[in-house]
Amino acid sequence: MSNTFGKDFKIMCFGESHGRCVGAVIDGCPAGLGLTEKDIQEEMDKRKPGQSKIASQRKEEDRVEILSGVFNGFTTGAPICLLVFNKDVKSESYEKIKQGLIRPGHADFTAFMKYGGFNDGRGGGRFSGRITASFVMAGAIAKKLLARLKIDVLAHTVEIGGIKAKKITLDEIKKNVYRVYKNEVRCADLKMAEKMLAQIEKAKKEGDSVGGIIEGIVLNLPVGVGEPIFGTLDGEISKALFAIPGVKGVEFGAGFPSTKLKGSQNNDLFLIKDKKIITKTNHSGGILGGISNGMPLVVRVAIKPTASIAKSQMTVNIKNLKQEKLEIEGRHDPCIVPRAVPVVEAMLAITICDFALSAQLIPRILK
Amino acid sequence: MSNTFGKDFKIMCFGESHGRCVGAVIDGCPAGLGLTEKDIQEEMDKRKPGQSKIASQRKEEDRVEILSGVFNGFTTGAPICLLVFNKDVKSESYEKIKQGLIRPGHADFTAFMKYGGFNDGRGGGRFSGRITASFVMAGAIAKKLLARLKIDVLAHTVEIGGIKAKKITLDEIKKNVYRVYKNEVRCADLKMAEKMLAQIEKAKKEGDSVGGIIEGIVLNLPVGVGEPIFGTLDGEISKALFAIPGVKGVEFGAGFPSTKLKGSQNNDLFLIKDKKIITKTNHSGGILGGISNGMPLVVRVAIKPTASIAKSQMTVNIKNLKQEKLEIEGRHDPCIVPRAVPVVEAMLAITICDFALSAQLIPRILK
Amino acid sequence: MSNTFGKDFKIMCFGESHGRCVGAVIDGCPAGLGLTEKDIQEEMDKRKPGQSKIASQRKEEDRVEILSGVFNGFTTGAPICLLVFNKDVKSESYEKIKQGLIRPGHADFTAFMKYGGFNDGRGGGRFSGRITASFVMAGAIAKKLLARLKIDVLAHTVEIGGIKAKKITLDEIKKNVYRVYKNEVRCADLKMAEKMLAQIEKAKKEGDSVGGIIEGIVLNLPVGVGEPIFGTLDGEISKALFAIPGVKGVEFGAGFPSTKLKGSQNNDLFLIKDKKIITKTNHSGGILGGISNGMPLVVRVAIKPTASIAKSQMTVNIKNLKQEKLEIEGRHDPCIVPRAVPVVEAMLAITICDFALSAQLIPRILK
Amino acid sequence: MSNTFGKDFKIMCFGESHGRCVGAVIDGCPAGLGLTEKDIQEEMDKRKPGQSKIASQRKEEDRVEILSGVFNGFTTGAPICLLVFNKDVKSESYEKIKQGLIRPGHADFTAFMKYGGFNDGRGGGRFSGRITASFVMAGAIAKKLLARLKIDVLAHTVEIGGIKAKKITLDEIKKNVYRVYKNEVRCADLKMAEKMLAQIEKAKKEGDSVGGIIEGIVLNLPVGVGEPIFGTLDGEISKALFAIPGVKGVEFGAGFPSTKLKGSQNNDLFLIKDKKIITKTNHSGGILGGISNGMPLVVRVAIKPTASIAKSQMTVNIKNLKQEKLEIEGRHDPCIVPRAVPVVEAMLAITICDFALSAQLIPRILK
Repeated sequence: MSNTFGKDFKIMCFGESHGRCVGAVIDGCPAGLGLTEKDIQEEMDKRKPGQSKIASQRKEEDRVEILSGVFNGFTTGAPICLLVFNKDVKSESYEKIKQGLIRPGHADFTAFMKYGGFNDGRGGGRFSGRITASFVMAGAIAKKLLARLKIDVLAHTVEIGGIKAKKITLDEIKKNVYRVYKNEVRCADLKMAEKMLAQIEKAKKEGDSVGGIIEGIVLNLPVGVGEPIFGTLDGEISKALFAIPGVKGVEFGAGFPSTKLKGSQNNDLFLIKDKKIITKTNHSGGILGGISNGMPLVVRVAIKPTASIAKSQMTVNIKNLKQEKLEIEGRHDPCIVPRAVPVVEAMLAITICDFALSAQLIPRILK
Repeated sequence: MSNTFGKDFKIMCFGESHGRCVGAVIDGCPAGLGLTEKDIQEEMDKRKPGQSKIASQRKEEDRVEILSGVFNGFTTGAPICLLVFNKDVKSESYEKIKQGLIRPGHADFTAFMKYGGFNDGRGGGRFSGRITASFVMAGAIAKKLLARLKIDVLAHTVEIGGIKAKKITLDEIKKNVYRVYKNEVRCADLKMAEKMLAQIEKAKKEGDSVGGIIEGIVLNLPVGVGEPIFGTLDGEISKALFAIPGVKGVEFGAGFPSTKLKGSQNNDLFLIKDKKIITKTNHSGGILGGISNGMPLVVRVAIKPTASIAKSQMTVNIKNLKQEKLEIEGRHDPCIVPRAVPVVEAMLAITICDFALSAQLIPRILK
Repeated sequence: MSNTFGKDFKIMCFGESHGRCVGAVIDGCPAGLGLTEKDIQEEMDKRKPGQSKIASQRKEEDRVEILSGVFNGFTTGAPICLLVFNKDVKSESYEKIKQGLIRPGHADFTAFMKYGGFNDGRGGGRFSGRITASFVMAGAIAKKLLARLKIDVLAHTVEIGGIKAKKITLDEIKKNVYRVYKNEVRCADLKMAEKMLAQIEKAKKEGDSVGGIIEGIVLNLPVGVGEPIFGTLDGEISKALFAIPGVKGVEFGAGFPSTKLKGSQNNDLFLIKDKKIITKTNHSGGILGGISNGMPLVVRVAIKPTASIAKSQMTVNIKNLKQEKLEIEGRHDPCIVPRAVPVVEAMLAITICDFALSAQLIPRILK
Repeated sequence: MSNTFGKDFKIMCFGESHGRCVGAVIDGCPAGLGLTEKDIQEEMDKRKPGQSKIASQRKEEDRVEILSGVFNGFTTGAPICLLVFNKDVKSESYEKIKQGLIRPGHADFTAFMKYGGFNDGRGGGRFSGRITASFVMAGAIAKKLLARLKIDVLAHTVEIGGIKAKKITLDEIKKNVYRVYKNEVRCADLKMAEKMLAQIEKAKKEGDSVGGIIEGIVLNLPVGVGEPIFGTLDGEISKALFAIPGVKGVEFGAGFPSTKLKGSQNNDLFLIKDKKIITKTNHSGGILGGISNGMPLVVRVAIKPTASIAKSQMTVNIKNLKQEKLEIEGRHDPCIVPRAVPVVEAMLAITICDFALSAQLIPRILK
């Protein structure tokens, strides 16, 4: 396994879905950042399920604990260990996997093979969406650091089960972003949010699931962030996003559809505005040559429909290589997109923060 | 800059479009691999332009030289330095950039800002497609190593300028792949290849350019390759692919369209075939939980229309912040997709090879 | 800070002397290693002070907890988080430092400057010998892994306060090593051990301290471990050992005295023994060209006299830049050498284990 | 192999003693540093042998070439490839090794075993002192960068064959350092330099060799450089120095002898001088807790007597495991200490430069 990410703002994550805890150690956070458990708890609460009809009924009352690296309310420069102890864990529903039935669309098979059957399969173990709690904890610190540079990291749902949010302008996003976490699907377009919700509920009733697309945005990113040719801004962000379970695609700016445009349509022309160079359009998504160009960074993340479905599926028992029917019980989100929104924010923030440190945008001691 | 990639099969690339050379050092190649300059030249020749109407007229007679790490025809375990000296370089056409005109869609602006104007802007310098020659050289070694495991890395054009190749089966791909490099657009569907070619020629006449989509495939990849949660197979591959200039999106298996499916449609059911576990469909693209599942790895790469177009464009002169018209002269491909096909192959091979070493699939000494 | 060590057996350490805990996350341990808290506790107990006259009177009843990565008594391949919660912490004695008096020979000054005064200075914080508990915990796992290869990692005190242990043969060491932890100074020469102990007690009475030399030995290390030219076996080990507070020098085999020999005296002649190539002498300390040669690896570590002494010392108050007298109260070892012995073992084991994994000596799944 | 060093000022070295070239790629050098081949040549010339009686008679007319990363006389931010093509290579004298005779004290045996006999053994191949030419080239750039911070990196011979230079003060060193390269043994004490020279000549006549000790010094290093707990200043420097063939020990400040002192003798008391905190003595060698304390950094490096001696030695033929007599012909330095002096300087400069970048002491763009 490789559970370390980052060069200057380095994180190492650990923990399992049904183990004792889920946590992260952050190494490289500058000294002098005001930080309390409450700061992190606020971000964690964004991924909290349980209050709605669509989310899994597991009550994650995740109480973040800071075990090191903070003294008198400020970061000390030492590594920061953050964790939440797991509560309300029911492993019985996972008996099927224990018996050897590998769930389609899940990592049960690959994890079994890679770790010789020694992996903790309960609740998906280290491959559960639960592990993204570590990302959100580390992301909370990254966001606080970026806030000092006035860099804003946002994410919102733009599509669920084929239902698309109205394409809104950045200005609207900036205005509406505070609403994102007010609706259950984390969508800035309140009208379509309702339809998305209905779509999820329908899938749930059918014992099925849906997927969707999340858009991540970074505002006020200065020109010059990114380390080509292998540490490109887009490359590192995509690597970070593929750490989120269920992600199957990542595109920047005009993305895949840009392949259908002519160069003359797709090129973003340079203009002068307020004595600064900007681009007229933003098909590049804020990145040229792997380096930020000062325009909003825009990335879209494809999330497949939840693999865990109530419907009966044919599968294989890995212990005897026989075909068997599988009916997954237990609590499962019919759509993980809404809960992945703060996770996309977190991974974006972590990646940008790492770049900001190596680009010397954030000093080693904060005042 | 960050010009190093990989952990066990590590490469460091260097060189500029109009500098003295383009090269790579490979550190971590096992000892005992038979290797000659001819082996590498063969891969290099795949990206050779000049023989067709659609490619830029620069004659890249790239003669690969091995400067270290090979003795008596075998790799020694020491770092392998490969390079091609640049010939036939015309820098006059780049005078405009020298005068301060930043080309839309190019890295001229971001590179200027990041490196304080010290960057070598000639021909795009370190941001030119030319640098992918390093990838292809390193990839040639990776492919030779993977061949020992019978792992095959392929790529082919599936779309150019909106024209899609017929979706073919893997069996057809395996049969037709040898044709890929026989047509100018590197497409396995010979019929659509002609239409793609026509599309490119049309764009060229209009002083414009087109983009497209390349599909990369890895065959015979064993189960268990990939190091979650941050060194996932998909995450590392996407990071590697974003190092290729012009890439705007990466998706695996069913990718973005999978977001419109139900879980019951998208899940790949497990089956037994020849006493091995396989999946009925391959929407996952061969990756579950960041780890290979033994099915063909399938990745698609979105390449934007070439930024360099003959058509006049408005831009900014970075030296005086005035708006100016830019007409790009010089040699430019109206579509870089065909030339990017061997580059996608190379980056895939490099990434897989790195994983194969850390997964102990390739021994440190070859016999 | 940089609290990560290793490439394949990677550890990230965290925690402070008087904070909530001291811990480590180990990423890269193969799946299938039998592991219990008791295994780790046994190594931890080797560094336990409190039972003797010479050690500081802090009772470290360190209860190791495994928070992740172990399931049903075996490692899962997932990261292993180990920690001990700090108990019996008295911070009052450190009031002086809080008031700004920087202790000579300590990191108070450099830590204050580097972290802008935000560092947790209590008990030395992140610069305390206490943090080596993390090393010992991680080392316990490394030792278990190495035991499968029959690689033995030992350490013993060879000099304290100028009193040298009799130079004993490797055979004697192998026989006597079990005694090492039976005397308070961790010395295999029981006669000199008494004199060393007397020396420490004398220093203590005088309000002073003494230093010494620890020898680390690795037995049964196969030929071929080490990754020149920058990942040499000696280079990585020395880097690892300098992480131990108080270390001022590291030498291998004949070390510094070898500089006074002639080449003809210092060269270890090759011989054949039992059809294997060995060397007649072992001046190289088991390393040639940064790679193990199959002979016992021998390294010696110079540890300075404990910086904390009861004697009054002149120093500076960093808050007002005035000279002041400092009298350090609190509990301090007059000699840290004995307690550093298991730490040297741990760092050696961690380093060798990392090499063994990258050299493919340890499989990714243990059976 | 692992031929990469550094995190922010990263170097990757390549080449063999009797191959085509020896070189290095430097990735991470800020843009805007004035740099010519002459700058690097000057440092290279310091390690030039051939003009004296004591050095090997190989004429290394090393002409440094810059292949990338420099444009119009300034670094561009892109990776800098430097190399020297090998000339005047005589491989005949190495026939013995080709026949299987492994030279005592050399890496012939370990390299053969580690690389399965595929390693290029000519002249020691990748294990030759020749490879340190890469270090000196990269070090030349590091020194130019450090010069901007007024950080001075020096080295001088303090002992050869048991003959010690008079211990001189730092003031004397500063004054005399320009003389160091004026005598053949690179010693600041001109009187003892003569005796050292005589010692080397004597050894040469006897067909034997001698070793010695080099002291490295870094002046004007600001407080706060070093990244504990694993990226300590002393740990990284020692790792860097063990990359130099023949190094068997590294100590800082009072080093090994400090183990015989009392704490009250060894502690460096803090004083105020010119409103800055300094220490009265410098037993710490400028490092406290792995971080620079503003005093001169002082490190000593033990270099074993040259392994290649003319005297006949018993050894083993690795091809048939028979004992055989070996008489090494060819050109060999009876003492490599003088030639290692600029190499110690280079490795120190590279390490400090890497730290200076990550500590944000050197900006990413130089003006």
